[in-house]
Order: sequence, then structure tokens, then C-alpha cells
Amino acid sequence: MRTYGAGLWLFGQFVDRYAADAYGPPVTTVEAIERAARVEGLRVLDINYPFNAPDETVDDVAAALERTGLTAAAITPHIYTRRYQKGAFTNPDPAIRREAVELFRRGTEVAHRLGAGYTKFWPGQDGHDYPFQADYAQLWDLQLAGVRQVVEADPSMQYAIEYKLKEPRVHMTFGTAARTLLGIEEIGAANLGIVLDFGHSLFAKETPADVLQLIHRHGRLVSVELNDNLLEWDDDMAVGSVHPIDTLEFLWGLRRIGWERPILLDQFPFREDPVEAAAASIRTIEAMDRLLDRVDPAALAAAQGRQDALAAQDLVLNELLGGRAPVR
Amino acid sequence: MRTYGAGLWLFGQFVDRYAADAYGPPVTTVEAIERAARVEGLRVLDINYPFNAPDETVDDVAAALERTGLTAAAITPHIYTRRYQKGAFTNPDPAIRREAVELFRRGTEVAHRLGAGYTKFWPGQDGHDYPFQADYAQLWDLQLAGVRQVVEADPSMQYAIEYKLKEPRVHMTFGTAARTLLGIEEIGAANLGIVLDFGHSLFAKETPADVLQLIHRHGRLVSVELNDNLLEWDDDMAVGSVHPIDTLEFLWGLRRIGWERPILLDQFPFREDPVEAAAASIRTIEAMDRLLDRVDPAALAAAQGRQDALAAQDLVLNELLGGRAPVR
Amino acid sequence: MRTYGAGLWLFGQFVDRYAADAYGPPVTTVEAIERAARVEGLRVLDINYPFNAPDETVDDVAAALERTGLTAAAITPHIYTRRYQKGAFTNPDPAIRREAVELFRRGTEVAHRLGAGYTKFWPGQDGHDYPFQADYAQLWDLQLAGVRQVVEADPSMQYAIEYKLKEPRVHMTFGTAARTLLGIEEIGAANLGIVLDFGHSLFAKETPADVLQLIHRHGRLVSVELNDNLLEWDDDMAVGSVHPIDTLEFLWGLRRIGWERPILLDQFPFREDPVEAAAASIRTIEAMDRLLDRVDPAALAAAQGRQDALAAQDLVLNELLGGRAPVR
Amino acid sequence: MRTYGAGLWLFGQFVDRYAADAYGPPVTTVEAIERAARVEGLRVLDINYPFNAPDETVDDVAAALERTGLTAAAITPHIYTRRYQKGAFTNPDPAIRREAVELFRRGTEVAHRLGAGYTKFWPGQDGHDYPFQADYAQLWDLQLAGVRQVVEADPSMQYAIEYKLKEPRVHMTFGTAARTLLGIEEIGAANLGIVLDFGHSLFAKETPADVLQLIHRHGRLVSVELNDNLLEWDDDMAVGSVHPIDTLEFLWGLRRIGWERPILLDQFPFREDPVEAAAASIRTIEAMDRLLDRVDPAALAAAQGRQDALAAQDLVLNELLGGRAPVR
Repeated sequence: MRTYGAGLWLFGQFVDRYAADAYGPPVTTVEAIERAARVEGLRVLDINYPFNAPDETVDDVAAALERTGLTAAAITPHIYTRRYQKGAFTNPDPAIRREAVELFRRGTEVAHRLGAGYTKFWPGQDGHDYPFQADYAQLWDLQLAGVRQVVEADPSMQYAIEYKLKEPRVHMTFGTAARTLLGIEEIGAANLGIVLDFGHSLFAKETPADVLQLIHRHGRLVSVELNDNLLEWDDDMAVGSVHPIDTLEFLWGLRRIGWERPILLDQFPFREDPVEAAAASIRTIEAMDRLLDRVDPAALAAAQGRQDALAAQDLVLNELLGGRAPVR
Repeated sequence: MRTYGAGLWLFGQFVDRYAADAYGPPVTTVEAIERAARVEGLRVLDINYPFNAPDETVDDVAAALERTGLTAAAITPHIYTRRYQKGAFTNPDPAIRREAVELFRRGTEVAHRLGAGYTKFWPGQDGHDYPFQADYAQLWDLQLAGVRQVVEADPSMQYAIEYKLKEPRVHMTFGTAARTLLGIEEIGAANLGIVLDFGHSLFAKETPADVLQLIHRHGRLVSVELNDNLLEWDDDMAVGSVHPIDTLEFLWGLRRIGWERPILLDQFPFREDPVEAAAASIRTIEAMDRLLDRVDPAALAAAQGRQDALAAQDLVLNELLGGRAPVR
Repeated sequence: MRTYGAGLWLFGQFVDRYAADAYGPPVTTVEAIERAARVEGLRVLDINYPFNAPDETVDDVAAALERTGLTAAAITPHIYTRRYQKGAFTNPDPAIRREAVELFRRGTEVAHRLGAGYTKFWPGQDGHDYPFQADYAQLWDLQLAGVRQVVEADPSMQYAIEYKLKEPRVHMTFGTAARTLLGIEEIGAANLGIVLDFGHSLFAKETPADVLQLIHRHGRLVSVELNDNLLEWDDDMAVGSVHPIDTLEFLWGLRRIGWERPILLDQFPFREDPVEAAAASIRTIEAMDRLLDRVDPAALAAAQGRQDALAAQDLVLNELLGGRAPVR
Repeated sequence: MRTYGAGLWLFGQFVDRYAADAYGPPVTTVEAIERAARVEGLRVLDINYPFNAPDETVDDVAAALERTGLTAAAITPHIYTRRYQKGAFTNPDPAIRREAVELFRRGTEVAHRLGAGYTKFWPGQDGHDYPFQADYAQLWDLQLAGVRQVVEADPSMQYAIEYKLKEPRVHMTFGTAARTLLGIEEIGAANLGIVLDFGHSLFAKETPADVLQLIHRHGRLVSVELNDNLLEWDDDMAVGSVHPIDTLEFLWGLRRIGWERPILLDQFPFREDPVEAAAASIRTIEAMDRLLDRVDPAALAAAQGRQDALAAQDLVLNELLGGRAPVR
């Protein structure tokens, strides 16, 4: 029985550079939790810190979680806002780098207080934009030093990096699974891993089910997030809406590694009702799981052992498309 | 009841710049027809001219068609081989441009002789590679002049342009549906239209079901070809293997415009058995058609009238994923 | 002597979905004009309407222009804000479509009052996100009907559409130059053309210098905007920072068509000083123009007549790279 | 004083899936060496083995090198031809995997005999095409096992992997620098490193100058190859023809790490004269080096220390564009 969760931003206020007046009114963290609670099957949350409204306290948030029966899966400190526009851990200004570390210290406290399983790095402003802008060795050193400082400060907390190729930075330092694993190995801390976002993997030109095994092989898989996109940008669309087969393959991969922790949604339903959008994704994942129950693991393993694309796909497409005739 | 067809190259010899010794032995046009005949449900062919073996005649090919019960849907003259490496209709050498026109004259004769419905332009070498290499106005003039000369020479033949963004040229002149429609309108001939290849459309960043209606709106849709890819290259993979939802949407679009002519496959199964690969695609399309039979057109039209993404997707995903619960 | 201009947003407040607290404080339209006036060589502006601050009037803006010596090149009504998040002209709600038309009526008045040369459509929310979400024929009808209604209401105003592939919509209706030309031809109004944004063209997989001639050929080129990007997104970076050769080719194309109107900048210097960023781009364009003065038009025409990539590139690279030895 | 080299295929016969009759006649390895010798400044070669003509011996090739004064930089065994179409080291058939290892044993002998500095893995067929086709953990195991077996068999030879995202496989196992480094670390052999191809890096969405430092940091940089492309495919165009600024940045990066070994060209001049195409690239690199001589390292380091994009770019653009005025 799977547990589902979501990044709490899914239920918040969206803005972009065009609809600068936002796609809807402001939403407090507590209000967002209440929205999340309306999604059938959703149980855990990745919560941004500082909270949405300036006066919201950790007690307010704890109370809202208690009231709704939801729990905190993760805390994600805001290191990509105005203050960190030129980078958090890679900021050329050491004072801002120190602030980022301090923000993680406080975020970690919140994570402990709320019982969150991990504290997440999402260093969207760490990287560069222009050719010649940065000394890449220096950038990498700064990136690793900042993360190391945070994770070594609290060995009792699990930390995880969510990599992405770009946005808001044109090039992010932790862009791919393999790159992030290299950084983690260099840091060498036991309490640091990866949050694998399916969509980030797709648009980094990875095969999500492949990097899933790679991260697992290195013992660094902390969490997974699902969504979909058009391969060129982090569109954060509903699960399975564009790439159902890759999504099925990813879910199959989760079975292979015995994944029993939650699956989180990372969506930005700019123009859809967020409760509906999240519920649709959960229904999709549940249906996909039932579909995969009907696939014969031995037959699939045999086809994959031969690397027989048509036979392997047949096992899935025949289920996906209902009455599709079997291979003769 | 749909008629299925294929580009005959699907059953031929594949080569690329790495496996320069080819993925298999040479295949004559007649042998390729015989292979095609083994695919259940496949009835019509798009046949390259000149034929594969130097000594194969149109009578040989006609006899093979007769013998196998297949028919010629189209003839596609080879204007992208060594002779035309610097362009067919846009070649800077007028002698080669004349040869291309002459090859089409002969190809058109073959099309008449074999009863093919259309003669196809696939001008893969017409375009440019490098910045500053060409005068684009001149290139466009040459492109239109060559096509015009061919189509005006035989008003009794239907011609059609298959556009693609690139490959083998880094930039092809007829790169997108809209661009090709502009060219066709400028040429102004009634007997010239478009072959819409689903995969070419995908990797040109078009929405295939959208350009389907656009080409149809202009009365220029001559044929459609199906396959799949990863959005960055013309991978020519099996139908529905990566983008089943976009494929379903395209098939839905074909229903909307009352398409009753054949659907052709354009695949390059480099490492798969071609007969199996074609058969898998046809089974996929047939299953997709049955799936679409279960979608309520009025409900979908209503959702689309509201541009309600979740509701519209629900109608399709619920069928695709079997037991997926309906929207509440 | 070229005239330079800029979209006024270059000097405004930037926000995106991550730095939701914005990259800097709010900037009124008048303040933005004053910033623009500090850029050496910058003379004309594309100004958004409604103005940035709720209480700013057209008289305030006219006064600021007068005071700074800048002039209005264009007015771009805000049809991509919260109100229009599900579309302006393609919104499923007819009331909002009417509002968009009405906003253009008022924007056109402002354009007349400020002496702007054109009123610009930037329909960033017109389009769709998900497969199956929309009836594309309906979408296209709505798009053309709305634009037609606006441009027919005031034949004395020049209108222009700025196309882009996506963002904020995942798929925009006016995505490419050719597609937009088809729409314009279908609308059939003399006072409607295109604003060609170099970066939009690049990331639509067009060759900017090629579509420049195509739009010019159709007599529909109203304005041009420069910037740069990484081909997958509208990064709106400084001119020539990534693709100097394509930029040079575009400037060469402008010479070929005898372009004497302004060149506008469309940049989003999220992390740079906007005055410096604009000035850098103008210096780049000026230096590129001087470089092109040294290219022999007859030699380039001869190389292009032969489609000789190496010879044509030599003429440019030898200038770009200073001491690069000529072809032997 | 730089040494230049080239992959010998630059001077050979090109073929692709469309011009299946090839872009020109066959070229023996000896003939290709003689062509290469005509390129001013070119000194070293990466030579494919087996040689082009069936009867060419290592003595023939050694004699041709001796005669022309060229030397072998590398030997690249052909593990991507028909025999290896379903993979070399990842082939599901253990007999073919053994053949690949045996081919490398013979290739290594040839490398020793010709005095080549390294033997190169270019495993273009190792990977997968379709979702669900392969068990990725198994694929990765096979990939590493095969490479390990080769490199452990001859500790006196330096080996290097040239990674690429795709082609001919739709997904290659060694797709990016970081992924390849992870594999190399897992193999753990001292005599295994990376050949960094600038174009492969570009189209893998890496920043070439960044992965240069990353590979160097791990002590695994064996060789570098230059070319250019449009970011979506391995177009193998002339150096600097599309991305001169990124190329300059890469050359700057080579200075930073004290690179004194050769720079090789990896081009496929399908429609250009190969001798001219190679010579143009070398002239470009030489001119770029002179340009970089004029850039003040201290000023650039200072700008990069501040991550000041405009100031850093100014230092380069001012040189690139000649008369471009300096920052005030």
C-alpha cells in the first residue's frame, strides 16, 4: 500500500514572469496544508521554510498537520528567493553563503520539530548563466563546501539534494543524477542523498528508471517525486499526462528496488484546481500500479535479458491498450 | 475499417554513419515487398524510385505487387542520395536541379504505371548547414521553382511534400507544416499537398493533432505517416512506444476530419525484425482505435469547449489505464 | 545610423516562480523610463499597458518620455496576467475574450496618444498545455477572430504579433513565423504584421535570418527584437552572448532588406544591472555592424551563390577572430 | 605551440541512412592518412581499427605514417558496426561481448605497434532504444565488466572512453562526463580515462569548460576533441562555426589546466572538402588562441570571482568584436 505526498507549493500561490500579479491570491502555509488534506490518498508533505506568511510559526504548522492528519515528509528551505538570486552556497558573497547555511540550520530544527524524514537542498540559484561568467572549479568547490557544512552540522538529520538542469539559473551546478552523485561521493557524508524528480530526470535527457537504479546502487536514494513534462523544460504537469510509458517504467523500477517510502507529487497546476490536479495524479499512479500487477515479471525479465524491445513493450502495451492482441 | 501501409524502406537495408557496413544485407525492392506482405493487415506501400537493385524494372515491381496483393500508395523519388548531397531543387548547380526534375518526371510515370495515389517530395538535402552558407531568399526561390516545375508538368498526378526539420541537412527548407503550407500557397497548384509524418511533427515542436487540422483546413492533407521518437530527432520508432497519448490524440483528430485513406508507417527498425516491428505498430493502432471507440465524443467536446485539461485527459486516461477511477 | 530601443520591462521588476518575492523592488513605468534614459544610444521603447503602478496615467508617461527625450515605439497591452491566465483571445469564456479586445481598444488609444508606431500582440497565454485539452480548430478560430476584431477596429493603427513557441503556455497558438504568417494571411488585414524576436526564432528551431526574409517577402515585418538564449528556452540574455555568428547573420539580413527602423532589445537581466545589460547589448550590435562593414558583399554573395559554407564562413570568421588567416 | 590532430574518419567515406550510396567513394586508411597530411598544422591521428580496406595491414599504416610524418595519437576499435548493432560490451549475447574484448586486445596491439598514446572506447551501440527494453542495472554491469576486462588486460596501455548521449543508439550507456566518471571510479583502474568531445558535451546539455575541470579534477582527462553543433545532435561541424564563445571558453579552460597534449578535430564534413574543413578549424583555433593571448587573466579572474557576467563577457567580446568599446 503506497503512501502519497506532495510538495506543498502545489497548493500555494503561483507566479511567473508574465503573470506577475500571480495566478491566484496568496496562500498561507496553513491554508495550503488544509487544501492538501482534501486530496484523497495524500498523506505526507514537503514543506517550504520559511513559511508562506511572515507570522506563521512552526507551532501553527504543527497544529495544522495534527488537525488534518498529514505529516511532514521533508522541509525545503527557501534558498532561491530574492536574497539568493546570485546563488546560495555558490554566491560570490561569503555573507550570503553563511546566511544560506544558517537558514539550513533553522530549517533542520523545523524538520526535527515536525518529524520530517529529510531536509532538502533545492539550490536553483546555484550555478551560472553566461559563458565566461564563472570559474567552474571555484563554483563546484563552493557548492560542495556549503552542502558539506550543512550536513556535517547535524549527522542525525538526513539531507537530500534535488538536482535539476536549469531554472531559475540557466545552468544549475547539480544538474544531473550522476553529477550529483559525484558531488556526494566527494563530500563523503553518510547522511546526504538524492531526491529524484522524474521530470527533472526526463528533461536532463536521462532515462528516469535508469538513474533510479544508479542512485540506488550508490545507496543514495532518499525520495522520489513524480510529474511530467515535454522534455525541454520543467513543466511540472500531471503524472502520466505526456509520458505514461516512461512513468510505468519508473514505477516498475521502484518495485525492483523494493521502494516502500512515499511517492511525492511535484506539480505546478497554474491553470487547474490544485486539489483536482493532485487527485488526478494519484489516481493515475494507482491505476498504473494495478496495471503493473498484471505484467508477468518473469516474462519481462526474460525479454529484457534478451534486450528484446518489441517483446518487452508488448507486455506493457497490451495492458495499457486493453484489447491489443498478444505477440504471436 | 482502416487500411494500413508502410514506407517500403521499413523492410529494406539500413545503414548509418557508424554501422557503415549496414545493419543487414542488401534487400531488393521485390524482396522488400515480399517482406511487407508478411505483415498482417498491411495493404499499401510508399515505394522509392529508382528501385533498390539496379536491374529491377517497374514490371518486376508491378508483378511483385500483383503477386502479394499489395498496392502502391505512393512513389518517392530518391532525391537525397550522393548525387543530390548538396541539394536537389536547391542545388547550386542548375544541371543537378534539372536532373531532380527529370527524376520526378520518371518517378511520376512509375506512379501512374503502378496506380500510386501520389508522388512524394522528400527533399532531405534541400536546405543548408552553416550560418552564412546560403542566401535564404534564393534558397526558397529555388525550392519553390523546382517543386512548381514538377507539379505543373503533370496536373493529373497528386504530389505531396513531406516536411522535416532536419536530417540529413542540418536545416531543411520545408521544415514545418506551416512553412510548407506557405510554400504551397505561393506555388498555387491544386495538385500539391502535404504528407504529415507524426514524428516529424513531434520533433519540429508542433502538436501533431493541431497541424493535422491546420493542413486539413487548407485542404492540403494528402497522407499521414505514424511512428514515434524522443522529440529531438527523427528516431522512427514503433507507433505509441513513447508518446501513446499524443498518438491517441492524433488518431482522434483523424476521426474528426473524417480520414478514410490509409495510415502509413514510417519506421526504421535498425535492431528489430521489420515484419514484427510493423505488425506491432498496426496492433497498437488497432487497439488505440478500439480504445477511442469507448471515449464519449460529446463529453470530450464539452471538456474541450471549456479547455478543461483534467476532465479531457480523464476521459482518455481512464480508458488507457483500465481501472482508473472516474472523476468525482 | 541605427536607432536602438528596448522593451521597457528590461528596466522593471522581475519575478519568477521561485524568486516569488521578485529579483528587486517594484518599478513604476515612469521610473523604468528614467532608467532606460541612462542607456547610451537607446532612443525608443516598447511600453506595457496598463502601466506598472495603478495610479500612473498616460500623461505621466508622456511627460516622462518628453523629459527624457525617449519616444514610444510600441504599446504592448498586458494580456497575459492573472485575468488572462486561461487565454486572452482563446479564453473559453467569451466575457474575458471581450475584455481582451476592450483592453486593446484602450491600448490603441494610448499608442495614438504617445505616437507609438505599432500596438503589439503578445498572446503568451493563448494556446494549450495538455494533450486532448483543446479543440485546435476552435482555438485557431478564436485566436484569429480576436486579433481580427482588434485590427479591423482601427485601420489607422499598425498592429503586430510577436510569436513564441511557449511560455507561459506550454504551447502557444502563434508559435512560429510561418504559422503566424498563415494566420495573418487568413485574417487578411493590411495593418497587421509581425514582431520578429531573434531569441524566439532561435528556440523555435528556425534560422532567424531565414524567417527574416520570409516575413519580409510577405511584407509583414513590423519590428525586430534582439537577445540570445540556449535554444531550448526564451532565456532573454544579452545580445551576442551565446550566438554571435547567428546574430551577425541576422544583422546582415537586416542590411539586405534595407531595414532602417529601430532594433529593440528584449532582455530579462534577472541578476545584472539593467542599464549595464542594455548598454552592453548596444555596444555589441554597434561593433557587429562595424565588423560587417568590413565584409565584402560581392564575395559573400558569390560564396552563398555556390552555397560554399567554408568560404562564406571564412569571410565572417576572419573578421571575428582578427588575425585568422584567409583561405588559400 | 599546440599540436593538432584529427579523427581519421574526417578524411574517409561518409554515409548516412539517406545517402546510402555514400557521400563519396571508398577511402582506404592509407589514402585517408595521405589526405590528412595535406592539412597544414595537422600532426596526429586517431585511427580506426580494423582498417578501412580489408587487406590493409598495420605495416601499411605504419609506413604511411612514416612517409607523411604523421603519428598515431590513438586507436579506436570499430565496436559499432553491423556485428555490434545490438551492443558491444552490453550485447545480450556473451559471444559478441567476448568478440568485442578480443577486438580490443588486437586494437591494443596495433596501438602499441603504432606508438599510439591511448586506445579509445567509443561504445555507440552500447545502450538501449525503447522504454522497458533493458534492465538498466544489468546493462551497467555489462558495460563496466567489459571495459574493466579490457583495461585490466593491459595495464601498460592508456584507455579512454568517449561518451555521447546518443547515436547510433537512442540512449548510450556512457552519456555524460559525470556518468562516465562514476563508471570509471567503479571500475577503479588507473589506466582508464575520458576523451572529452566538445560537441558531445554541448548536446548533452553540459557546459564543456565546466566538465573539462570536472574530469581534470578526477585526474581522468586523456584527450580532447573539437567541433561544433546545434545542441540537439552530434552535427560534427567545423570548430567555432556556431558556438565560438563556448569554444573560446573551452580553450581558456585548457590553459587553466595546463593542457599541452594535442587537440583533435572530430568533424564529419559531409558536403565539404575534408582537407579544407580541417584546415579551417585549425586556423580558427589558432586565431582563438591569439585572441585569448590578449585577454588579461587577472581581470578575468577578478570578474569571475565576482561572477560578474557582463564584465567577464566584455573582456572576451571586446576582443572578438574588434572595436567594441570597453566597459565604462
